[in-house]
Amino acid sequence: MLNASIITIGDELLIGQVIDTNSAWIARSLNPMGIAIQRRVSVGDDAHQIRQALDECLACTDLVFVTGGLGPTSDDITKPLLCAYFGGKMVMNESVQAHIQHLFEHHLKRPVSPRNLQQAMVPDVCTVIPNAQGTAPGMLFKKEHKLIFSMPGVPFEMKTMMEEQVMPMLKKSFPLPPIQHRTLMVSGIPESNLADLLVPYEAQLPDGITISYLPNFGLIRLRLSADNISTELLDAQFNTLQVAVEPYLVVNEDISIVEVVARKLIAHQATLSTAESCTGGFLSHRITSFAGSSQYFKGSLVSYENDIKQRLLGVEESVLMEHGAVSEPVVRQMLQGVLQVMQTDYGIALSGIMGPGGGTPEKPVGTLWIAAGSREVQRTKCIKLRYSRQNNIEAAAVQGFHLLLETIGSTP
Amino acid sequence: MLNASIITIGDELLIGQVIDTNSAWIARSLNPMGIAIQRRVSVGDDAHQIRQALDECLACTDLVFVTGGLGPTSDDITKPLLCAYFGGKMVMNESVQAHIQHLFEHHLKRPVSPRNLQQAMVPDVCTVIPNAQGTAPGMLFKKEHKLIFSMPGVPFEMKTMMEEQVMPMLKKSFPLPPIQHRTLMVSGIPESNLADLLVPYEAQLPDGITISYLPNFGLIRLRLSADNISTELLDAQFNTLQVAVEPYLVVNEDISIVEVVARKLIAHQATLSTAESCTGGFLSHRITSFAGSSQYFKGSLVSYENDIKQRLLGVEESVLMEHGAVSEPVVRQMLQGVLQVMQTDYGIALSGIMGPGGGTPEKPVGTLWIAAGSREVQRTKCIKLRYSRQNNIEAAAVQGFHLLLETIGSTP
Repeated sequence: MLNASIITIGDELLIGQVIDTNSAWIARSLNPMGIAIQRRVSVGDDAHQIRQALDECLACTDLVFVTGGLGPTSDDITKPLLCAYFGGKMVMNESVQAHIQHLFEHHLKRPVSPRNLQQAMVPDVCTVIPNAQGTAPGMLFKKEHKLIFSMPGVPFEMKTMMEEQVMPMLKKSFPLPPIQHRTLMVSGIPESNLADLLVPYEAQLPDGITISYLPNFGLIRLRLSADNISTELLDAQFNTLQVAVEPYLVVNEDISIVEVVARKLIAHQATLSTAESCTGGFLSHRITSFAGSSQYFKGSLVSYENDIKQRLLGVEESVLMEHGAVSEPVVRQMLQGVLQVMQTDYGIALSGIMGPGGGTPEKPVGTLWIAAGSREVQRTKCIKLRYSRQNNIEAAAVQGFHLLLETIGSTP
Repeated sequence: MLNASIITIGDELLIGQVIDTNSAWIARSLNPMGIAIQRRVSVGDDAHQIRQALDECLACTDLVFVTGGLGPTSDDITKPLLCAYFGGKMVMNESVQAHIQHLFEHHLKRPVSPRNLQQAMVPDVCTVIPNAQGTAPGMLFKKEHKLIFSMPGVPFEMKTMMEEQVMPMLKKSFPLPPIQHRTLMVSGIPESNLADLLVPYEAQLPDGITISYLPNFGLIRLRLSADNISTELLDAQFNTLQVAVEPYLVVNEDISIVEVVARKLIAHQATLSTAESCTGGFLSHRITSFAGSSQYFKGSLVSYENDIKQRLLGVEESVLMEHGAVSEPVVRQMLQGVLQVMQTDYGIALSGIMGPGGGTPEKPVGTLWIAAGSREVQRTKCIKLRYSRQNNIEAAAVQGFHLLLETIGSTP
C-alpha cells in the first residue's frame, strides 16, 4: 500500500479562475493500482510556496505528483525550481529537442521559435518523461526511495503522459495490493433516513471496510472501501448492502444515471430523443458525452422559445395560453411531439424555471415539469428544485433520466 | 492584505470520485475582497490528516476556510474533531434545532429524525453560522487573531452561507485593500508566439504587476494581477497590453466567449439557433447556462442521426452520400436548414468525429466542420482537434462560437 500526494501549481487555481480537474483524474487513475492519495495541495506560481509543498509532501508520502508550471512563458517557474530543489543544473536534451522540432514541422506546421526550443532544457538530475501531446517534457526525480513526477498542467497532455508513461512505470516498479471499492446508487430516500436504515448494517461492518454516503440531486451513491480485505469478504458485504437498500436500488455499479439509461435502452434495442426547454440541451449533452450513444440516441429538440414548441413539437397555442409553458399538459405534448418528430421509442421532455429570475407566486423559481416514456406508457412529474441555475439544470437532468428509467421499468 | 487557506475534506475528493469545485468558487469570491488564497489542501475523512492540515494552514495564514464532513452520516467527522481541536465540548444549540424542525415541517415535509436533530449539537467554543439551505450549521472558531470557518461541503449550502453570512462578516471585520486583476482574451496566435510578441511589454512591467497566460482550446486569456498598485497604473498597463495584442484581441474583459456572443447578438437585436451533430447539444447548453439567453437564443436541433439531418434540417441524401456527414456541404445545409426551421438571424452548425472511435484515413478522429452565419453571410471552417472526446466537444464549441463572431464582425 503506497501513499501519494498531488501538488497542482498555478496562480489561476488559487484565484479560482480555473477549476482543478487534474487532481481528481490522477486520484481516480492511481487508486485502483493500490496507490492512496493522502493529500492534495494547490499552490501559486511562487517558489517559496512550491518548496514548502514539496517539503511537506515528501515528509509524509512516497510518491509526489506535480502538475503545472512547465509552459514556455514567464509565469512558468516549476522546472528551474525543481532543478534547484533536487540540486541539478539545466542541460539541453537532444531527444526532447528533436521531438519539439518534429511536432512543429509535422503537426503544428509553423516555424519553431527559440522559446519553444528552450523547453528542451531539462535538469540533469531527472529522467525525462516524453510528452506525446506537447512541447513541455515531464520529469521524474528520485530522492532516497521516493519518486517525484512533474507533469504539464494542460489536462490532455498530463493524461496522455500518465496513461502512456507514468502508470506503466509505476506498475513495473511496485507490485501493489489494490484498495478496492464497491459503489451502488439509490434513489427515493433522504440521506438521513438511509443512514438510519443502515445503522444495523454499519454496526456489523468488519474493520477495514468503510462506508461513504455521496448524495447528489436526489440520488445517493453508497461506497464501500476496503483496505487489506479479501475480495470475497468485500463482495459478501456489498451483497448484504444491496439487500438492505433493495427497495431504493438504482444500480449496483459506480456508473452515472446516463450510463444506466444507455445500457437499458441498448438492451431493449430502443431509441431515445429529448425535447428540452429549461435544460437547454444539457440532457442531450450528457447522453452524447459517451461514445456509444449513437446506438440509441437520435437527437434532441431544444425548444427554448414557445414559438419552437408550437411549430416543431406541435404544442398547441391554446394549451400554452391556458396552462403556461411550465405545466403538465405542455410537457405531455412536448413528449408526444418529439416521439413523433424524431421517430424514437422513448423520449424525455422538460420545462421549468431554472432561475435566478422568472418565477411567479404560483410557479416559483425551481418549478420543473417532466414527462418521460413511450407512445404507450408515459409518466409526468412535478419537482421543486432549490439550487443555483447551473445546479437546477443538472438536477433536472438527473430527475429526467430517473423518470425515464421508471417508465422503462413499467413497460410491458 | 490577508492570507487565507482552504481545506476541503472528504475521501471522495482523494479518490477522485468528486471534483472539488468549492475551492475555486471560494477563491474567486474572496479574491476581489483583498483576501489571497495561499494554499488549498484536500484531505480525507481522517482525524490525523485533518489535524495536520489545520496545523499547517494555521501556521501560515490568518484565515482558514474548511468545507465538508458536516453531514449526518458516520463518515462525517469534522464537527467533533474541530470541537476537540479547539478544546470545546458539544452542546445543543436551540436556534439550530428550531431551524431544523422548521426545515422539515415546511420545506422537506417529512418527519424529523433523531439523527437530523443531532445536527443541532455544536461545539461550545464556536459561533454558529446559520445554514439557510440545509441542516448542518456552519461554525466560526477563533484562535489568537486567526479565524477558522467551517462550512458544509454541499456546494449550494456552502455558497449561500458564504454569500449571506461569511462574506458580510469578513467585510465588516477587515477593511481590506483589494488585489486587482485585468483579463483579456486573444485568438489566432499560439501561446509561444504571443509570449515572444510580449517580451518588450513584459520587460517594462513595473514591480507589483504580473502577467499570466491561460491558454484554452485556441483562445488565450492574458491576466494582469496587481498587488498594492494604484488602479490608474494598472489600467494604463492594461491599455498598453491591449494595444500590443490588438490584431488578436477578442474581448478586454474576463468573460467567456459565449458571453461575448450574447452581448454582440443582443446589441444587434439578433437571434441565434444551432444545429449540432457531434457536439450533441453542448453549444446550446453553454448558451442557456446564462439566465438572459432567451433574449437571443431560440433553440437547437441536435441531429445526432443522419435521418434527423435529412428530415428536420433538409440536408440532401445525395450530399450525405457523396461527401459524408462530416463535410463542408453538409454543415452548410445544416446551417441553412436551422436558420429556416428556427427562423433566426444567425446560426451555427457543426459536424465532426469526436472520438475515440469513428475515424477513417481521410477523416481521422478530431476532424470537425463548422458553418456559421446568417442567410446573407456564411463562413465555414475545418479544424483538426487532438484531445479527448470531452475536450474535443468543448474545443468544438469554442471554435463554433468564434467562427460566428467572425461572421457577425463581417456582416454589413
